[in-house]
Amino acid sequence: MPGNEIYVGFDLGGSFLKASSFGLDGELQERCSMDTQRCLRPEDYLDLFKDATKSLSSNKHLKGIGVAVAGVLDLDAGKVIDSPNLPALCGVPLLGMLEDSFSPIPPQMMNDANAAALGEFFAGAGVGCESMFILTLGTGVGGGFVQNGEIWGGASGMAGEIGHMAIESNGKPCTCGSRGCLEAYFSGWALERDARNHTERYPDSAIGLIDKISPASLSELADSGNLEARTIWENGGYALGIGIANIMNLLNPERIVLVGGLVNAKEHFLPTARMAWEERSFEQSSSSSKVVLGKLGEWAGVRGAIQPLLQEAR
Amino acid sequence: MPGNEIYVGFDLGGSFLKASSFGLDGELQERCSMDTQRCLRPEDYLDLFKDATKSLSSNKHLKGIGVAVAGVLDLDAGKVIDSPNLPALCGVPLLGMLEDSFSPIPPQMMNDANAAALGEFFAGAGVGCESMFILTLGTGVGGGFVQNGEIWGGASGMAGEIGHMAIESNGKPCTCGSRGCLEAYFSGWALERDARNHTERYPDSAIGLIDKISPASLSELADSGNLEARTIWENGGYALGIGIANIMNLLNPERIVLVGGLVNAKEHFLPTARMAWEERSFEQSSSSSKVVLGKLGEWAGVRGAIQPLLQEAR
Repeated sequence: MPGNEIYVGFDLGGSFLKASSFGLDGELQERCSMDTQRCLRPEDYLDLFKDATKSLSSNKHLKGIGVAVAGVLDLDAGKVIDSPNLPALCGVPLLGMLEDSFSPIPPQMMNDANAAALGEFFAGAGVGCESMFILTLGTGVGGGFVQNGEIWGGASGMAGEIGHMAIESNGKPCTCGSRGCLEAYFSGWALERDARNHTERYPDSAIGLIDKISPASLSELADSGNLEARTIWENGGYALGIGIANIMNLLNPERIVLVGGLVNAKEHFLPTARMAWEERSFEQSSSSSKVVLGKLGEWAGVRGAIQPLLQEAR
Repeated sequence: MPGNEIYVGFDLGGSFLKASSFGLDGELQERCSMDTQRCLRPEDYLDLFKDATKSLSSNKHLKGIGVAVAGVLDLDAGKVIDSPNLPALCGVPLLGMLEDSFSPIPPQMMNDANAAALGEFFAGAGVGCESMFILTLGTGVGGGFVQNGEIWGGASGMAGEIGHMAIESNGKPCTCGSRGCLEAYFSGWALERDARNHTERYPDSAIGLIDKISPASLSELADSGNLEARTIWENGGYALGIGIANIMNLLNPERIVLVGGLVNAKEHFLPTARMAWEERSFEQSSSSSKVVLGKLGEWAGVRGAIQPLLQEAR
């Protein structure tokens, strides 16, 4: 029965394997999320993939699976090249293992930021537009440029690294080895660094008294009206706005979509971000490049992961 | 006789109207260049267009003309919206005037930076590549992103403004009203500003003794070994390299093509530019995004201006 046929999309990250089932038209059916923190070997991950599929496909006929992975991938070899959050999978031919497990269904694999970009483009904040730039605002900052439904990968598939766009030529050191990158001013780790620096100077301040410094706890403190926490978010937001202005001036995409965990604190960083991009972009660009929040939240990746299956079927 | 049929491409700037004739295969035939500095009225420009065409098309059959214009254009209305270097043409329906003059041949019109980009892509440094970013390094700095032979205009045709990418959040003031733009660190006017600042402090220095400060005179002084002039070029080059690294990380185009008058001083700014982009880009990006000099020099625009005619004819 065609009504019973499904695709399953996965999004594999350092904390969770998220999975959703979709009808052949891309309509969402069910979701589940599994803890990956106890996975030590590639086989442990594979067991989670199988368990999730079983739970989502009872009484259904599985037609295809798509997998988004948080890491640098070699798509030709079907391998995970590097992934700080999935160390057990580095160098592992994940695609081949999935092929063996789900045979005869050939799985599709892609990078998680690209999957989130496709998910938002086809089923979220990008619906109906021709071009979109997505910014993934989490521990780090990633990006992706989508034109007419295709991700612009560039000459070596490396395009989209907005997190490492320099906005200060001799600025703060970045995890990438360079200085002054956007990510060194606005990202989960940069906000935590700023909070720790504050704590060292003012151990008795409200920030100094936070149990565990994180974007979430800093956002809560800012919610409560604490000015130091608000200033950290506002300064970060201004840097984000510079990055957004640069995208507007350089690419002028129809939409600029913000996704990722930091978006939860939008009221603390968006006003200064907007101030920066309005000061620094051409009016014609900023008025035609609309900045919007993602609509699929943390579930954009699972939707994007099945996009190639939907397109193949057409 | 088909061998006698030609297209004529024009490139209209503040100092010259450049024109070239091309065979129907795009092969260059003849060139001429006319002084536009005494043009005060739109009709004066029109006379130059006619004179140039007459001189290039004697004994030939004119099949089409393409015109590149240094300014912001409204392509739907065929108007020049704004052009600092062609004040007599601001608000003028140039395309309609050319249509009347060259009837029944319908002229094609485009922005000069876009024309230079297409010229280099189809007949210069971009031949054989899929994607290219061009930087026009002159009094100001412009840019254009070309993919598979098409210029990426963005939502409002404003894409490519690499000159106004912020590389210092609180940096030097720019002519656009913002601060810290690439153009405020490396461009004809920024180099002249740096030289004038130097002159004010050190009126008896070699720079202070230059008759007329310009990129050309600063380059000559640097050629002679003068360290102050060299430092100005080297600092500018480092800023350019930051902009190039940002393009590599964000777009990873197959080639990055440098054109414009400043390229004549390449030996003075390219080494520090290279240092900056090697320090600041991912190795995978910089190794796959090759930085090259344009091949058509100041004649890229006339070639790009006829590209739509060549494509239509196919």
